[in-house]
Amino acid sequence: MDGVKVTSEKIIHHPKGDILHAMKSGDNGFCGFGEAYFSKVVQGEVKGWKMHSKMTLNLLVPIGEIEIAVCDGKNIFSLVLSPENYQRLTVSPKLWVAFKGLSKINMLLNIASHHHDPTESENVAIETFKFQWANPDN
Amino acid sequence: MDGVKVTSEKIIHHPKGDILHAMKSGDNGFCGFGEAYFSKVVQGEVKGWKMHSKMTLNLLVPIGEIEIAVCDGKNIFSLVLSPENYQRLTVSPKLWVAFKGLSKINMLLNIASHHHDPTESENVAIETFKFQWANPDN
Repeated sequence: MDGVKVTSEKIIHHPKGDILHAMKSGDNGFCGFGEAYFSKVVQGEVKGWKMHSKMTLNLLVPIGEIEIAVCDGKNIFSLVLSPENYQRLTVSPKLWVAFKGLSKINMLLNIASHHHDPTESENVAIETFKFQWANPDN
Repeated sequence: MDGVKVTSEKIIHHPKGDILHAMKSGDNGFCGFGEAYFSKVVQGEVKGWKMHSKMTLNLLVPIGEIEIAVCDGKNIFSLVLSPENYQRLTVSPKLWVAFKGLSKINMLLNIASHHHDPTESENVAIETFKFQWANPDN
């Protein structure tokens, strides 16, 4: 889908605790640093749809398993991110995003290009764009 | 301690999953965005001491409980970060840092001012600076 990029990020395994890369300035998909925040999502719950008019998102899932869906108004792109499928998902502005928690504890990091600004985003009900979410029991 | 700042960050509670602020550009302690990475630490294990010559660290603990110690060569500043004590710890360059995992799953995020560069950091054995770490059983 136009405006969506998936970039593998490295995990360095260590017996005292792994290191998981998130993003470097200058990386593919980096559009400046505005703000970083975590969003947890309870197992079986869906957050979305939300659309940003200016913000580029860079999403990583270092804990748990989260299905992320991106909709351009017609088509939907989706993937499941987790430490087992450790990739960074870049989402350009003007795309709708929703995500579902599939594991017991699920957390994503968004490294956003802009500060949070409630006038810059729109929300619509999850029924607005039909999508067959994965079942956490699967 | 000179070169150490502690900043409260907001947690927005939500039944579908909390939002935890991490850092905005322009915040107290922000010195530019170079790289972000996660570091997990196994319960009871200590990582450190490490000293960066250029990098300013901004450390957050969104999962678990991590005791972080900062040493200027003489004195040690320490605190325990967790979602229950949700603060951002800014550490200036030229200070030694070590941290210990206190909970079952422990993860910190470092929003670093510079890219990782092995020639820019030094490591010394944990015995180099004496510190009485918390016991994970407490």
